[in-house]
Parts: sequence; structure tokens; C-alpha cells
Amino acid sequence: MAKIAPLSGFPEWLPSGRIVEQHMIDVLRSTFELHGFSGIETRAVEPVERLLSKGETSKEIYLLRRLQDQGADSELGLHFDLTVPLSRYVLENAGHLDFPFRRYQIQKVWRGERPQDGRFREFLQADVDVVGQDTLAFHHEIELPLVMVDALSKLPIPRVKILASNRKVAQGFYQAIGLEDVEETLRILDKLDKVGPKVVAEMLGEIGASEDQARLALELAGIRGDDAGVADRVLALGCRSELLDEGLEELVALLEGANDLIPGSVSADLKIARGLDYYTGSVYESVLEGHEDLGSVCSGGRYDSLVSDGKKTYPGVGLSIGVSRILARVIGRELVTPTRKVPTAVLVAVNDEGERRHAEKTAQQLRGRGVAAEVSPNSAKFGKQIRYADRRGIPFVWFSTDDGEQVKDIRSGEQVVADAAQWVPPASDLTPELRGSDE
Amino acid sequence: MAKIAPLSGFPEWLPSGRIVEQHMIDVLRSTFELHGFSGIETRAVEPVERLLSKGETSKEIYLLRRLQDQGADSELGLHFDLTVPLSRYVLENAGHLDFPFRRYQIQKVWRGERPQDGRFREFLQADVDVVGQDTLAFHHEIELPLVMVDALSKLPIPRVKILASNRKVAQGFYQAIGLEDVEETLRILDKLDKVGPKVVAEMLGEIGASEDQARLALELAGIRGDDAGVADRVLALGCRSELLDEGLEELVALLEGANDLIPGSVSADLKIARGLDYYTGSVYESVLEGHEDLGSVCSGGRYDSLVSDGKKTYPGVGLSIGVSRILARVIGRELVTPTRKVPTAVLVAVNDEGERRHAEKTAQQLRGRGVAAEVSPNSAKFGKQIRYADRRGIPFVWFSTDDGEQVKDIRSGEQVVADAAQWVPPASDLTPELRGSDE
Repeated sequence: MAKIAPLSGFPEWLPSGRIVEQHMIDVLRSTFELHGFSGIETRAVEPVERLLSKGETSKEIYLLRRLQDQGADSELGLHFDLTVPLSRYVLENAGHLDFPFRRYQIQKVWRGERPQDGRFREFLQADVDVVGQDTLAFHHEIELPLVMVDALSKLPIPRVKILASNRKVAQGFYQAIGLEDVEETLRILDKLDKVGPKVVAEMLGEIGASEDQARLALELAGIRGDDAGVADRVLALGCRSELLDEGLEELVALLEGANDLIPGSVSADLKIARGLDYYTGSVYESVLEGHEDLGSVCSGGRYDSLVSDGKKTYPGVGLSIGVSRILARVIGRELVTPTRKVPTAVLVAVNDEGERRHAEKTAQQLRGRGVAAEVSPNSAKFGKQIRYADRRGIPFVWFSTDDGEQVKDIRSGEQVVADAAQWVPPASDLTPELRGSDE
Repeated sequence: MAKIAPLSGFPEWLPSGRIVEQHMIDVLRSTFELHGFSGIETRAVEPVERLLSKGETSKEIYLLRRLQDQGADSELGLHFDLTVPLSRYVLENAGHLDFPFRRYQIQKVWRGERPQDGRFREFLQADVDVVGQDTLAFHHEIELPLVMVDALSKLPIPRVKILASNRKVAQGFYQAIGLEDVEETLRILDKLDKVGPKVVAEMLGEIGASEDQARLALELAGIRGDDAGVADRVLALGCRSELLDEGLEELVALLEGANDLIPGSVSADLKIARGLDYYTGSVYESVLEGHEDLGSVCSGGRYDSLVSDGKKTYPGVGLSIGVSRILARVIGRELVTPTRKVPTAVLVAVNDEGERRHAEKTAQQLRGRGVAAEVSPNSAKFGKQIRYADRRGIPFVWFSTDDGEQVKDIRSGEQVVADAAQWVPPASDLTPELRGSDE
């Protein structure tokens, strides 16, 4: 038997960490629903040829085989994101969906890559997308990042700011300055933060860019801002094209629209390229303030033709939150902790085993009114039963005494007469709550 | 590219079905927490040798390999239940857990078996277990099935009744009548419903049972009841052993304790054997009334030595609900449907694109007070915007008119002046609710 040991890249939490994770999932989900997104869940597997048809992650796919394979299955792999499954789900169910289809999806995904800080082999993603049939209005490119900002702002984590660019800006600009291989140029610019401007200039040279072209591409990548001034700075570089103008108009509309609805939510950062080649409009990354080393924790963009069945196309826009990446940081560094490790608010003490049934009925009454209660597993001395509660952070212990039913707040020591059909704990003790590290 | 088609054995729901599933998960989870169980989630994979060390499901395991394998990984497989991962989690984290450890876990599991009605390759299970360190009191064998009955009774599904037996009864009885191979006898009796008493008698004969022994084993398997009369009928068969007496005492304590706390919750049915050999005390199965053909939808039992690190043992008792099995039936036959397909309660209409920002701010105000709102994706004629809402079941449409802000209940046609900072829909329209087929 293998030694019991954690598997690198497959994070798991203790119950207290899971309370933080579950709270985060609940907040994301309820916010997505407030914005009118329907939850779906897709199977964990897709046919391998579908997984291989998009993106650059082929080497990271986990394939499945049955231990005793009868050879009849088409080859299946675990999904590595929630976008490929969404595409397939939309095509498979198009006749039953209403478009624009607003969906959110919070699920594990798997990638066989080398685990490192913030990168896992199994991790949780939370995606929202709006998918249209044949057309999708631009205003959704303003709407979707705001859904994420709204959701993330309700979590007890540092502030997340969305950084945006627009594929049309990059593509229009590169074409205007004569850089024809847009995809490769984007791929090189995507490495800017990692390798620096000098290496990027060299790499651009290798694909045929002149020094002037490389300089201009780097100048474009250096432009940031929160308003229409961004477009002015791009135009000041002296290049124009119809596509560039269209992209700048969209980028400014995004900045103005988003920051009017949620001030400070979105900034332009023209170095954002996004590796995947299916984006066609706005592209988004983000930073968790004070944790920039984690990389983007929420990314996505607009795609016009990710999904198509040959007759109809399904353009969309969406973003994905790297939930595990954020959690690993806030749980790992104890930036967020729950007020207790268990859901139980009240431990019902047992005087002796003959009175266990009475204690069970007390707990039943409390639960019937929404108060989480468990009965002491033993009828040891009260001190020991109180320690059982204390070790778990259970705030109240219930006693059946000769003077009637009583409940003790074991933090203050205060003990009062109580009726299981009426008593409730203070709202802040009803369920575990989360505390930030600064509280 | 492979044709888009559902994969047999990998169920997925449309958004309306997912509302039913999510509601069911929420009810299970909140009930488990009311009973003081901590939620955990384990990774989807375990080392293969750990998966193979328990039970009889070796041929059903899905193994993983990376598309470009660097050969360094120990072999991993997808978990086929939540008990093996629990064992490993308890051993791995024993130093950080408080015992008895009360945990629930609601997760997908995978089995490569042939799909059929109610049997899937990917399905959702909901487990609760209490795990002790070295010892675990018997009263948890009464407590755990009641947690499940409480949870299942809150779902809009037919009634679930727990059927129980006790390994000590079967084992003590078989030994008393001279049937030495208890495991094999249990395995044969487990087939009783499928093959009938005649075949079972023949199979018992093949492992050396006399006609009398086979008859007695079948008579034991035929005993059912809700009270101490069960023990009387077993004893009337004329065999005694210490183990049998102990088992009957536990069985009667279970029936009396459980039915006192929740009347009608648990019956004895001595034909229940459970295939897995690690059970040592109470064993549980269940029926969904009116859907007995589905087989057990909630099963489990007491185990003394499933989990051990050689020094300490971790006895436990737990049950598992086959969530997908129940859902496939109630969603598939539309026994339960949601009042609408989307979370949205209010569609905010857009007069023309120039007023979209105003509509976004109205939606923002509504959401801020917990009312799910989305803005119309277009500024088409109002009739078309109302149809957008109608098709999705969105009950209210919000208009900005020359006479001020107004909200229309599109079912009744009633339209009233409203303030986005104050208006709320009736509670029954706030979120989608579930309807049983008889409503």
C-alpha cells in the first residue's frame, strides 16, 4: 500500500479551509444568479479530439482508460477548462436553450502540468459567459467583467481590478505598422512580463519585425489608463487603420461604461494579449492587489467563432475566476479564517446514557428552527463535554439540569434558562462566519 | 471532429434540471450542517493501489494517463466512491481532525461499468459518516440513518424509508446453524431479490449448505418488522449464539430509537446483506416509495476497521445517497420542475440603446437588495422584450416610462408604479421554486 501523502498539485482543505471555499462558492453563485445567469454543470470528460481542437494545452490533458478495457469506448479525457465543455453543451442543446444564453459554471478542471505556486493539476474554476446565436451585442463586453467585479468585491479578499485590452486594437495596430503575423506577435507580447522588453524585441526581430516595428509594438504594450486618454495615446503613435479605430472605440466604451457603473472597476492595459487565438474583441485579465505575483485570477474575453456547428455560429463573451488559485493564497496564508471549524452552534450535553434520547429531542427541536446542533457523543463529566465543544469552537453547550433546561455561552461562561422551542443564538453565532486577517 | 452527442452514462441537465439538482444539493448540505457535520471535498483521484484495496469494483476504475506522459507519476485513478477517499483523508489528516469526526461530502464519482437505468459512469453521491478514533459508540448507528431520513424528507420526492439489518445477526445466525463461510453466504443472499429463493438455495447448496441450513438462511432473510417482534421471530427459528443476541439487541435498539425520534423512519429487513465485506454492525438500504425498481437510493453501514494506519483504527458508520439516481428519475419523468428556467426575477426593458445605462443602474439597484435582475439584451419593441421574459419564465418586466418607473407582472398583466430602491417581488417569485408533479 502506498504511503499516505498529499499528491502534489491536488490541493485539499481541512474542514476549516473548506468553510472558506464553500463560502466563496456561495457568494459567486448567488451573485451570478442575481445577474440572471443560469447554473449548469457538465460532465468531467469530453472526447479527446474535442479537447485537442482548441488552445495549446494538448500535452496537459489527462486521458482515461478503464482498468479492464473492452476497447469499445471512444477515447475520453478530463476537461482542462470550462469553455470547451460550454461550446459542446451549447451545440448539443441549442434547440432547448434561449439565446443569448447566460450561464455560469463552477467546477473542477484538470491539467497534467507541473505543479507550482498557484498552479494545480486539479483546480476549481468559476466561469460566466453570455453566448448569442449568430450575433451578440457589444454591451455584453461591458457587462461581463462587471459581474465578476461585483462577485469578487463581496469576498473577504484583497481588491481585484480588471485589466482590459481589445484584440482589434492590437491587430489593427500591428497591421497598420506592417506586422502581418498577428497571432505570433501576440504570443510574443504575451511573454513581456516574464522576459522583459529587450527579449521581446529580439523575438519580434526573429519573426521579421524591423527595429521600428518592434519599438512601436512595445510602445503600444506600455499604454495604460482608465479613460479616453488611452485612445489618444495610441493615436499619438501615428498609425491608423479602420480596425484599430473600431477597437479603440470599443475599449473606450468599455472603460467609460464599466467605470460609470462600478467606479475603479476596469483599467486599460494594452500589454494584455491572452495566449488563446479565439478572442476577437475585448480581452480581460486581472490582479489581486498585493498579490500580483499570483498572476491573473480572473481572465477571459470576447470570441466570435469558438462555437459553430457549420450552420450557425455562437459568439460569446466570458470570464473565468481561478478560485483555487485565490483560495490557496488566502487559506494558505490564513488571510481568511472561519469563526469556527464546524457548523454546529450548540452541543447538547448528555447527563448519562439513559438520557441520550432526551438530548436528541432537544437537538431535533433546535434544528427544526435552523439552529445547528449535535448531541455529545459521550456522557462524560460536563467539563469534558465542554472541552469537546471548545476544541471545535462550538459556542454554546445545552444542559438539562434539575432547574430545567439551560444554555451556556462557553466563551463568556454565562448560563441562562432556555426553551429549545424558542431559544436562538445571536445571528453572528448561527453559522461560521469569515474573518479577514486584519480583523 | 466527433459528432456532438450525449455520452451514455454521463448525465447532464438542461438549466431547469440543474435548478432541481442544485436545490437538492442545497437541502442535503444544509440538513447535514444542521446536524453538525463538516463538509469536506477530496481530490477526484487516488493512487490505484488504494482504489483496488477495498471492495469489488476493480474493473470499474478509470485510470488516468497524461497525453504526453513523462513517466514519473505513480498511477492514479478516479475515485469510484467517497468512502475510500474518506479513509485516506482521515489517515492523512488525523493529527488535525477532532474525533469523532463528523463529515459530509457531496461529490461526483466515476465507475466504468455498463450504463443502464439508474446506473451511470459519472454520478453524484452525498455521504455522511462519523469516524471515531479506536472506538465509536453504538448510538451513532441510530443517529446516522436519521440524518438521511431528515434530509430526504425535505426534498420534493417520494418518501424514502430506511431498511436495516445487522451483520452480527446474519453472522451469528449462520454460525449458529453451522454455515461457516459467512462472507460467501452473505454474497449469495444479497442476490435474493434478483434470482429468487430457489436459486439462492441451490447456490447455498453449492457451497456446502444442507437443505435445512439453506431453508433457515432463507427464513431469516424473510423476516421484517418495525419493532422488537423482529427479534422474537428470529429467536423462534430456534438458533442462538452470543453474536446473534448482540446483533438482535442492536437491531431492536436501532428500531426503537429511530422510530421514537422519527416515527416510521426505519424498518428491519433481514434480507439486506450489502455486498461489501467491511461492514461489521448495522447495515442500511432504502427504497424510494413507488420507485422500488430503482433499487436502494441510500445505503451504508457500520465498519470497524475500514480505516487503520497500523497503530490506530478508525471505526465509523455512514450512509451514501445516490443523488444522480434519484435525480434522473424525478427530472427524467418531470416529477419535479422549477417554477422558471432562469434565476432572473425581473427583466429591465431598454427603451433605446441610449438609455441602456439607465436600465443597468435600475438592475444594479434591484440586485443590491437581493432581487435577481437582467437588462434586456436589445431595445426591440416592448412586445418582443416581454416575449424574451415570457419564454424564460421571468415573471416581471421593468419599464422606464414618461410616467416614471413601472413594473409589470407579465402573467397577470398588472402594471404598477415602482421604485427600484424599494420594490420587491412576492417571496414566491424571488427565486425559482420547485413543484412536485401533483401540484
